[in-house]
Formats: sequence, C-alpha cells, structure tokens
Amino acid sequence: MTVRCGLIAVSDRATAGVYEDRGTPAMREYLSRVITTPFEVVERLIPDEANQISAAIIELADVEGCCLILTTGGTGPAPRDVTPEATEAVLDRVIPGFGELMRRISHAIIPTAILSRQLAGTRGSSLVINLPGSPKAIAECLDAVMPAVPDCIDLINGPRIDVIASVGAWRPPQS
Amino acid sequence: MTVRCGLIAVSDRATAGVYEDRGTPAMREYLSRVITTPFEVVERLIPDEANQISAAIIELADVEGCCLILTTGGTGPAPRDVTPEATEAVLDRVIPGFGELMRRISHAIIPTAILSRQLAGTRGSSLVINLPGSPKAIAECLDAVMPAVPDCIDLINGPRIDVIASVGAWRPPQS
Amino acid sequence: MTVRCGLIAVSDRATAGVYEDRGTPAMREYLSRVITTPFEVVERLIPDEANQISAAIIELADVEGCCLILTTGGTGPAPRDVTPEATEAVLDRVIPGFGELMRRISHAIIPTAILSRQLAGTRGSSLVINLPGSPKAIAECLDAVMPAVPDCIDLINGPRIDVIASVGAWRPPQS
Repeated sequence: MTVRCGLIAVSDRATAGVYEDRGTPAMREYLSRVITTPFEVVERLIPDEANQISAAIIELADVEGCCLILTTGGTGPAPRDVTPEATEAVLDRVIPGFGELMRRISHAIIPTAILSRQLAGTRGSSLVINLPGSPKAIAECLDAVMPAVPDCIDLINGPRIDVIASVGAWRPPQS
Repeated sequence: MTVRCGLIAVSDRATAGVYEDRGTPAMREYLSRVITTPFEVVERLIPDEANQISAAIIELADVEGCCLILTTGGTGPAPRDVTPEATEAVLDRVIPGFGELMRRISHAIIPTAILSRQLAGTRGSSLVINLPGSPKAIAECLDAVMPAVPDCIDLINGPRIDVIASVGAWRPPQS
Repeated sequence: MTVRCGLIAVSDRATAGVYEDRGTPAMREYLSRVITTPFEVVERLIPDEANQISAAIIELADVEGCCLILTTGGTGPAPRDVTPEATEAVLDRVIPGFGELMRRISHAIIPTAILSRQLAGTRGSSLVINLPGSPKAIAECLDAVMPAVPDCIDLINGPRIDVIASVGAWRPPQS
C-alpha cells in the first residue's frame, strides 16, 4: 500500500497569486529525497484563516489518510499568523519536543527563530508538523525532526515509513 | 523527620506481570545514591490509566506526604501513553523547564527523545517529575534535573533535602 | 514620535520597602544602553498579586501605549510567584521560544534556571517579556532575546525600534 503525506501551504499572498508558494515544492522535494517507502502527496494551498487550516488538517488526516501532514507558513507573531492555534485545535495531543527542537536548531542560524510558534502533534494515526515558510528553514527543521518521524508514526499505529540511512532515524531494536 | 519520596511505575505490561518493572529499581537506586538526607520511598505500580495515575499522585502527595514524586513510563505518543496529561491534571502548576531540559539532554543521545511529552510541576509542597521508561534514560534525566530539585523543594516549602556534592545542586547563599 | 517601554517590578518585599528593587534599574539601564530610537520608560512597582500584575500589563499596553513591556520577579515555583500566569491571562498569544531560550541560556550559568516559568507573548501591538529578578540574570536573558525584539515588534505593527549593532538584531532584508 502506498503511504500518503499531506502538504499544506498557508499563505494569504500565495493563495491570492501575488506570491509564489515555494514551501510546497520544498517539502515535496525533501520527502522525495529521504523517504524510500513508496508514497504520494496530497497538497492544499489555503489562506491564513484558522478554520480553513483546521479543516484542511482534518481532511488530510481523516479522509485522505495521510500519516504525515506538514504545514508551511503562518507560525510567526503577526496577527494573520494562526497556523499553530488552528493546528492545535484539531490535534489529539501536542508533542512539545518538536517545536522546542526546531526553534533551537533554527535559532543557531537566525535569532528571530524564537518568534516561530510552530508545533507538532498527533491526530489519530497522523503526525502533523508545522514548518516555517522559507524553503531553507523547512529543510533545516526537517533535518532536525525527521530522525524521530518513522518511530513516531509506528507508535501511533500509522504505516511503516523507511528513510535513507543519512537521516539517522531511530527505531527500537525489536520493531 | 524522615523525608518521603514517591515512585510511580506506569505500565500496562508490568502491572499484568508480562514484563518486569525496571523503572522503579532504577529510580530507587538513583535516589539512594545521591540523597544524603534520611529518606524512605513509597512505591506504586499501576497500568496506563489516566485516572489511576492521577489518583496515585494525589495519594502520594496529599496522604503519604512525599515531597518528591517520580513517575516512569507512559510519556510517549502512543495512544495508551497518558502519564503527562494525568500528571498535569493534578498539578497546581507546571514548571516547563524540566521537560525542556530532559528532552534536550536526551536528544543528544537518541533522536526520538523529542517524542517524550514528560513534564514536571508542583502539587502543594510536592514536586512531581515524569521520567522515561528505560533505566538508562531515567538516570540521564535525573542527572540533568537533580541539581535544581533541592532548591525547588525549599521554594515550595517542602523539607530540606541534601544531596552528594557531585550532583552540583545549587541553593541561594542565604538559605 | 517617542517609543515607550514599560517596566514592571513584581515583588512583595520591594513594594513593602523591606528590599530595594534592583530589577527596574537593571532593565532601564539595559534598554538605555542598547536602544538607539528615542524612548521613554513607564515604571510600576507592585506586589506579587496576580490581579495587580495583569492590570499593570493591560494599563501599560492599552493606555500607556508601551510597545515593549518587561517584568522582573515572580517567575519561580514559590506559592507567591504568579507573574507568568498573571501575564499569560492578558496575552493574546504566547510565543514559547522566548521562555525556552531564556531558560536554556540561564541554565548554562545556574542549574536552577529550569525553575523559572518565565514566558513572553503579545497583547495587541505590545510585546511582553517576563524576566528573572536578579540584575545579572536580567542582562543575560535580554542579551539572548533582544536580537529578535525589533523584528517581533515590527510584525505586531508596533513602532520601529533600532538597537546598537552589537545586539545582533535581525530584520528581513525587505523591511
């Protein structure tokens, strides 16, 4: 069975066509490069509207069956940035270590990384991770958290996902 | 007066006897090695049931008078892992620095440490700390946070606890 | 137009006059040293009472128009320490990276830094940051977060604040 991954770009400007969405290609190319299990992506481009973000996560998790859902954009402190709260509203549980780690590694690169309120957590058997907007920061954050993603999806009873060795993913010996 | 510490092992399998509880001995031996104040432990072994975890913390804090309560197990993202929410439900206040630090030092050892939702906080004059399940990770986390434990218990009006010098515990000069 | 910054010292003992408030001078001198935009400070000294802390933040943000509000004191685990919860109660949103970073850099200096529950976030166009009580720790925390403060205030539509180059503040190239 082919694994499915959801990619949600959140951006008023990209939705209005005044700005090119560069987050989705960055997320897609990253996953294509590191995931060895056959997979397909389901993509959504939506404005910075909390109810649309929450609805997109629900759809990709519950209807489309995506075991990994990545969002890009809308994590800052600006009034229109509502991705973290819209995500948290539809998670069963937040896993705080994802946000902590992504901010910490990004902060070593740029001091304003502390402004990102990005979080991650689970909804049923789906792992949802907020990523920043810039392609460079997306790759940095995925480099940081991807080693824990396969084991996390195992633990929430999602499908087995294998990644290339250089990711450094860890699974318990018995699995 | 002898200080009391509570040790709660949370595990469906250990409770059912299909698996040996190795967390409790690890916590007990750690405390015996570093705490120089006379103390005794009160131990509980319970399944991954939120209401039983919450009840055990309340009993050890309010009835048994334990100033330090350690839990082991149930902090991951699996559906049966409910220790953090069961703990938070009966805390007066969460102290986020404990979870942040334990995840950070564990992440330097194993990348899936970010999946642990372990937290700590206070209930009255008791400090409650969630620890991972593995004896090795228990010791690593206690090495990280123990330097702050005596001062924390002082600040919440618990009994004075002294530890061996190699812990590197800090107290304000005036106390 | 002159920018306004609010400084709130929270301390039962300083309010009662049994203890000198050293936090306010430390915060004032720090800002005077690093902010190059003309600014003035609005200061409040209040006891560790949650409703007075919340009211002071609301007043400095909504009435006095302070774009940056710093508090000192009341962030520990002691029963009278209520600054974080009194702050969170009047924030629109918490920005968790501030607290995480301040605890992390303070922890490299003193292990009990994990006991500080200090947080930061926004109320309208005001950025509110909890700081520790000691002048030394205030400077250490401000050194850590100040590089992100000007961009944060830009993003919440506050006034432009410029700081000396040695702060290492970052702003996006287009702004």
